[in-house]
Amino acid sequence: MSKPKGFEKPIGFRDYLPNAVSKLRKIENDVLSCMNQWGYSQIMTPTLEYYDTVGVASSTSDQKLYKLLNNRGQALVLRSEMTAPVARVVSSLLKAEPLPLRLSYHANVFRAIEEEAGREAEFYQTGVELVGDDSPEADAEVVALAIASLQAAGVQTFKIAMGHVGFLNGLFEEVAPGMQEVQEDLKSHLLDRDYVAFRDALGRLDLTESQKEEMDGLLRLRGGKEICGQALGLSRHPLAQASVEHLCKVWEVLEAYGVSRHVLIDLTMVGDFTYYTGMTFEGYAADLGFPVCSGGRYDNLLQQFGRSVPSTGFSLKTNRILDGVRGVENKQELPVLVQYDAQRRREGLEESARLRSEGHVVITKLVSNPAELTAANSGAETGGKRYKDIYTFVSFVKERS
Amino acid sequence: MSKPKGFEKPIGFRDYLPNAVSKLRKIENDVLSCMNQWGYSQIMTPTLEYYDTVGVASSTSDQKLYKLLNNRGQALVLRSEMTAPVARVVSSLLKAEPLPLRLSYHANVFRAIEEEAGREAEFYQTGVELVGDDSPEADAEVVALAIASLQAAGVQTFKIAMGHVGFLNGLFEEVAPGMQEVQEDLKSHLLDRDYVAFRDALGRLDLTESQKEEMDGLLRLRGGKEICGQALGLSRHPLAQASVEHLCKVWEVLEAYGVSRHVLIDLTMVGDFTYYTGMTFEGYAADLGFPVCSGGRYDNLLQQFGRSVPSTGFSLKTNRILDGVRGVENKQELPVLVQYDAQRRREGLEESARLRSEGHVVITKLVSNPAELTAANSGAETGGKRYKDIYTFVSFVKERS
Repeated sequence: MSKPKGFEKPIGFRDYLPNAVSKLRKIENDVLSCMNQWGYSQIMTPTLEYYDTVGVASSTSDQKLYKLLNNRGQALVLRSEMTAPVARVVSSLLKAEPLPLRLSYHANVFRAIEEEAGREAEFYQTGVELVGDDSPEADAEVVALAIASLQAAGVQTFKIAMGHVGFLNGLFEEVAPGMQEVQEDLKSHLLDRDYVAFRDALGRLDLTESQKEEMDGLLRLRGGKEICGQALGLSRHPLAQASVEHLCKVWEVLEAYGVSRHVLIDLTMVGDFTYYTGMTFEGYAADLGFPVCSGGRYDNLLQQFGRSVPSTGFSLKTNRILDGVRGVENKQELPVLVQYDAQRRREGLEESARLRSEGHVVITKLVSNPAELTAANSGAETGGKRYKDIYTFVSFVKERS
Repeated sequence: MSKPKGFEKPIGFRDYLPNAVSKLRKIENDVLSCMNQWGYSQIMTPTLEYYDTVGVASSTSDQKLYKLLNNRGQALVLRSEMTAPVARVVSSLLKAEPLPLRLSYHANVFRAIEEEAGREAEFYQTGVELVGDDSPEADAEVVALAIASLQAAGVQTFKIAMGHVGFLNGLFEEVAPGMQEVQEDLKSHLLDRDYVAFRDALGRLDLTESQKEEMDGLLRLRGGKEICGQALGLSRHPLAQASVEHLCKVWEVLEAYGVSRHVLIDLTMVGDFTYYTGMTFEGYAADLGFPVCSGGRYDNLLQQFGRSVPSTGFSLKTNRILDGVRGVENKQELPVLVQYDAQRRREGLEESARLRSEGHVVITKLVSNPAELTAANSGAETGGKRYKDIYTFVSFVKERS
């Protein structure tokens, strides 16, 4: 194995140059400010957590976790998402706080990746958790806030696909009773959106004709409010029925928020984390082939940390928004140049301080002869002005530019 | 070794609750905005870097680096400071950019710690690098910006102690010519501020009486401009002489900035990184026993990444400012509560949207009977108002509060 070259960084990691930082910061600030206006307070947690606690609870597959040992020999992980760390905080430092709790975060998370082109090993998530409320109202609030957050991030056109894990659990229990492995298989095909494999797996089951038709119907269950009625007819399993009823109440609240036009019920939605127990959703932007946000209800996660309370939340995939969305621009102001010689240095620096106090960006430069002076039109030949303005404080004879 | 409890986080790591996040964010934003006004553009680099490149260049002792292997078997480290990563970026992505380059950052860095009380394994630094300028003007600019940054961070009273590694190198070469180990030893005693050990080490050298007196005088070399003259008399070594002359020119520029009252020349200053080659400085706040910022010139670091240019910079120890400085407060606005029943939900949510668009923080709550209503004086008994205002949209009879 050859040594990395001096200038290399590990595969899957990236540097952000000023223009990208400026855009990322704008998204971060605008989204956090939106979340704040909905009553969500930001918390921060460590980059490293215990493998045995947050690592396991995060339900990121083991080979995708970055692991290391501390000097006590304990296994640590670089956090792979933020829901489990927030659950840990809610169960410890915030144990005595009255519910519901509304918390937000903006954090980098890590996934050990295979060397696939374009996969990122470190990326940013901006999200919220609403802890201690199991009502459809709470699920609708996080969906509505996800919509507001995408808009705050500059994503203009998008759809939220919303489903319910309980519906699939009930339905699959009905067609493959007690067959956990088969059920997991079916769900994983849906998660991968591999409908051919899904139909193949169904084909190997001993289903009646009408059951087969129903399962086929499942794949067409996408749309608005009308899906609720159709879904209720699809499975008589009590869990499936209760799940659809919950989802329809969420829809009703989303209508009251005036945002249901952004939402699509999709009962094939599984959600990308195994800790989801109820409603799950994903947001798709018009021009992008992958989700820009995802979320859902996780009523059993917090009990792993010793506080049993229902919760729901989502996170924006901030990097995808940064890379994929046009129009996010945080125009950097052109600087003012203040150039001076040693004799008039104090004057030049005083003027710089004054200009900064007025809000200008100021770069200073010591010059010792006329040849070192920056002319007003400098940079024009390369297609752009480099300075908004140039102030010159010199005692030698200044050439006309 | 026992398993960690569910709610535990690794030793040396911390959670930041909303109040702390709000303060930290305020410091971060105010300082970055100050740096921006001085023409410094923010960049971001990965949390993980190659051990063989940035890990080694960072000059953090090996046992203080968090190390792990990626799935190619390459050794990675969690960054321990930001100067080496920025040097890597300057030597790669920014290779073609004209000098001088002015870059800033705000980042978490990591040090594997022994289990000492109060030591942090992950903490924040906010800093700048001025790349490609070896003049006293450049060193003075970063010292003056450090002063402006501390003020922006809310640190009212502080002193910057400024020294020069070259002066000590010259002086020690004079008293212990060619004895590298002895010289390193002397410097490490000064870094630890262990003057007893310093005098002991000198005592073991074969010095003349006048040399002994001179070395003793070194420890008293602290003050303003007058130190320059005294220091020039202390060592005839050319490196020592050139270093003192450079430092005196820096002082002159700091006078022109109008900030020399914050600065103290201290020729016993070593600087906490071995890559420093010139001027070094540390900032001490009035009430704190440890530095709140540190910086210096590192003219040989960038050549390790393939671009040989002189550089100077500093970083604020942002966590110490957060924890130690009174008066930094980012008052969280009290939220408005909008409570509604199912019948009047749409009205309630529309009002919430309106209030948010006016800049208010709004929490919404579904209520189903009068007992669930929050009264206006709620929370008053526990010493504080919880809501700035309460709006109620219910169709059932509302009790008077």
